[in-house]
Amino acid sequence: MNMETKFEGMEVGYDVPALPGMSIDEIQTPCLILDLDALERNIRKMGDYAKAHNMRHRAHGKMHKSVDVLRLQQELGGAIGVCCQKVSEAEVFVRGGIKDVLVSNQVRDPLKIDRLARLAKQDARIIVCVDDLANVAELSAATQKHGATLECFVEIDCGAGRCGVTSISAVVALADAVNGAPGLTFAGIQAYQGAMQHIDKYEDRKAKLDIAIAQVKEAIEALKAEGLEPELVSGGGTGSYYFESHSGVYNELQCGSYAFMDADYGRILDKAGTRIDKGEWENALFILTSVMSHAKPGKAVCDAGLKSQSVDSGLPFVYGRDDVKYVKCTDEHGVIEDPNGVLKINEKLRLVPGHCDPTCNVHDWYVGVRNGKVETLWPVSARGKAY
Amino acid sequence: MNMETKFEGMEVGYDVPALPGMSIDEIQTPCLILDLDALERNIRKMGDYAKAHNMRHRAHGKMHKSVDVLRLQQELGGAIGVCCQKVSEAEVFVRGGIKDVLVSNQVRDPLKIDRLARLAKQDARIIVCVDDLANVAELSAATQKHGATLECFVEIDCGAGRCGVTSISAVVALADAVNGAPGLTFAGIQAYQGAMQHIDKYEDRKAKLDIAIAQVKEAIEALKAEGLEPELVSGGGTGSYYFESHSGVYNELQCGSYAFMDADYGRILDKAGTRIDKGEWENALFILTSVMSHAKPGKAVCDAGLKSQSVDSGLPFVYGRDDVKYVKCTDEHGVIEDPNGVLKINEKLRLVPGHCDPTCNVHDWYVGVRNGKVETLWPVSARGKAY
Repeated sequence: MNMETKFEGMEVGYDVPALPGMSIDEIQTPCLILDLDALERNIRKMGDYAKAHNMRHRAHGKMHKSVDVLRLQQELGGAIGVCCQKVSEAEVFVRGGIKDVLVSNQVRDPLKIDRLARLAKQDARIIVCVDDLANVAELSAATQKHGATLECFVEIDCGAGRCGVTSISAVVALADAVNGAPGLTFAGIQAYQGAMQHIDKYEDRKAKLDIAIAQVKEAIEALKAEGLEPELVSGGGTGSYYFESHSGVYNELQCGSYAFMDADYGRILDKAGTRIDKGEWENALFILTSVMSHAKPGKAVCDAGLKSQSVDSGLPFVYGRDDVKYVKCTDEHGVIEDPNGVLKINEKLRLVPGHCDPTCNVHDWYVGVRNGKVETLWPVSARGKAY
Repeated sequence: MNMETKFEGMEVGYDVPALPGMSIDEIQTPCLILDLDALERNIRKMGDYAKAHNMRHRAHGKMHKSVDVLRLQQELGGAIGVCCQKVSEAEVFVRGGIKDVLVSNQVRDPLKIDRLARLAKQDARIIVCVDDLANVAELSAATQKHGATLECFVEIDCGAGRCGVTSISAVVALADAVNGAPGLTFAGIQAYQGAMQHIDKYEDRKAKLDIAIAQVKEAIEALKAEGLEPELVSGGGTGSYYFESHSGVYNELQCGSYAFMDADYGRILDKAGTRIDKGEWENALFILTSVMSHAKPGKAVCDAGLKSQSVDSGLPFVYGRDDVKYVKCTDEHGVIEDPNGVLKINEKLRLVPGHCDPTCNVHDWYVGVRNGKVETLWPVSARGKAY
C-alpha cells in the first residue's frame, strides 16, 4: 500500500521518525503510529456495512489527509472516492490518483475557483458544495474559461449551523440555477449533521438525525416536483451513519473517524449503551510517546505536548493503562500522574488523541506497525493543506 | 533575510499560499502572515532592552521554528543564539547556521542522545538540560563515542512543576557529576518559571518570580561553595524577562513570544495595568482568513478552523475590529458573529491566534507583508520537528 515512498538517504530523527523493520522501541517519539491490523479491520467493517445497506461510501479524507489510507479504504472497504474540505486537499487526492472527489465545502476565492476548475480537467469527477446563487455564477464562469465541467451539491444546513441553506425554496432555487448554468451539473445534496456526531446517547443522536432526515426528505420531494431529482444525497459520520443508511433518502456516507478513532468519539455510546471504542470500532491511531523525566515522585513527564496533538476536544488517554493518567499538556510536554511510580525513563506509551483530525494535521508521517515491528511509513500527504 | 528560498516552479495554492509581489487580497487563505514592520520593531526593542541590561538574549526558536526569524533576531536584536525543545529542532537550527544552540529540555532516548552528540561536532556550541544523574552518564558515553563535547545546564524546577530538580543538594550533585564526566562541561543553570508567564497581574507574576529567584540564588551560592560557579544562568519569558534582568542572578533571557505576540499573552498586564499588546509589544503574527459563507443573517463563516491554529489557550480575536467576533472554531471553519451584516464574501480578516507556538507549528510558511504587498515567504523550517 505504500505510495512508493523512497527511504534511501532519509535520516531517522531528522527526516522520519522510524524506518521499516525497526522495533517499536526504536521509533523516535513523539509520532503517530497506526496499528495496521486494527485499521484494516475498521476499514473492512465499514465497507461491509455500506455494501450490505446499498450505500456508497465516500471516505472523508480530511480526517487522515493520506492518499495511502484512502487507497486502503478503496481496496479493502470499497470506498467510491473521497470527500475533503479544501481545494488543496482535493489537489493532493487527484494527484494521488483518486477519481471521485467531493469538496464538501464552499469555494469562493477567485483563484481557488480557478484551481478547482483546472482540477476538473485532470480525469477526475469533481463535486463542490454551493449555498449562494452568486457562487453558482462564479463556478460556471470558471468552467467556461477552462473548458471544464464541475458538479455541484446544494448544501442544506440540517443542524450544524454553519454553511448551507435552511429553506426548501433556497434549495430548489440553487439546484435550478446550477442546472441551468453552463459547465455545471446538479449532482445532489450535501446534508451532514455535524452538530450531533459527538452527543453521547444513541437516542439523543437519533432525535437530531430524525429532524435532519425529515428536512432532507422534504427538499428532495420539492426538487422532484421541479424535475430536479438528485443523483446523490450525501452525509453521515461515525456517530450517525446507521441513521442515514436506514433513512430511505441518503445514498452516500461520508464517514472518516471510524478508521482511526479518537478519545472524543470513543466516548459516545451505541444502541446498547456501550462506548463505541469498546466494540463498534477499534483504536488504530496512537501518539507514541516516551517518558523523558521523572524527577518528582508520582509524576512522570512524556515528550508529547501541544505540538503533537490538538486538545480542542480534551486530553488524550493512555491506551491500555489504568495505573497512569495523562493530566496536563503543555507545548512539548505531557504530565502523567504515576501514583505508584511504575513508569521508567524511555518507557513508551500509546496515547489516544482527543480529536483525530487536527492531531493528524500536525504530523508528517504515519508509522504503520504490526507484530511489534514498523511495517511501513505513509506521508500525511495533505498535511497543512488548508487553502 | 530570505533563506534563498527558490520560488521558481512553485504553484500558488498547492505549494505556497502566495508569492512575493502579490497583493494581500490575492493570498490564498488561511495562512500565517507576518507584519514585517511590527516584527522588526519588536525584535529591535527586545534587543535594546537586553543590551541595556547587560543580558544575553537566547531567542526561543521553539515558538517560531524559523531559521529566518532567528537570523533577524540575531541581526536586528543581537540574539546570541537559540534555545529550542527538541533535538530535531536543534538539527534544523544548526543546519541553518546557528552556532549557539540550547536544547532547554531533557534528552533520554539513546538514538536522540546519539544525534545530539553528532550535532556537537558540527561547529556549534550545543547545550542540553539534565535533571537525573543517570542522564549525565548517558550523555557522557555518547560524547566519548563520537569524540564530541556537550555542555549541560542543570535544570531547576522553580515552579513549572514539570522537569527539573527542586532541592539544592540535587543541583549540586548534578553539576558535580557533569563536571567530572568526560566529554561534558557544566555550563550553567536552566531555571524558567513557565507557570507564571500567563498570570494577568504584574504584581502576581512578580511574587512568583521572587520565589524562583531566591531559589536560584541559593543554588548558585551552594555551587560556588563547591567551586562550581555557573557561567550561564538562563530563563525568562515574555511575561517575566524584566524580573530576571533585575535579579542579579540571571545573565541570559529566553524570550520567544514577544516577537509575534498572541491573544493569550496580549491579555497580561504591564506594571501600569495596560495589556502588553497595547504598548509593550505589537501583534506581528496573524492568521489571514477569508469569509466563505454568509448564508445566515448575523453569522459569517470563515475558512480558518482547528487545522489553522491551536485553541488550547482560547479562541483568536479579529484584529482591529470591534464589530465582528470569532465565536466558534471547528476543523476547517470559524464562525463569526456579524450582527450588522457588514462582512462580505471573500473579505479578508486578520486573526490573532490564542497561542502562537502551536499555531505556527501547523503551517508551512510565513507570508511576510509590508505596505499592503507580499514581500517574502519564509518556511517554518522546524515545523513538525517534534522528535
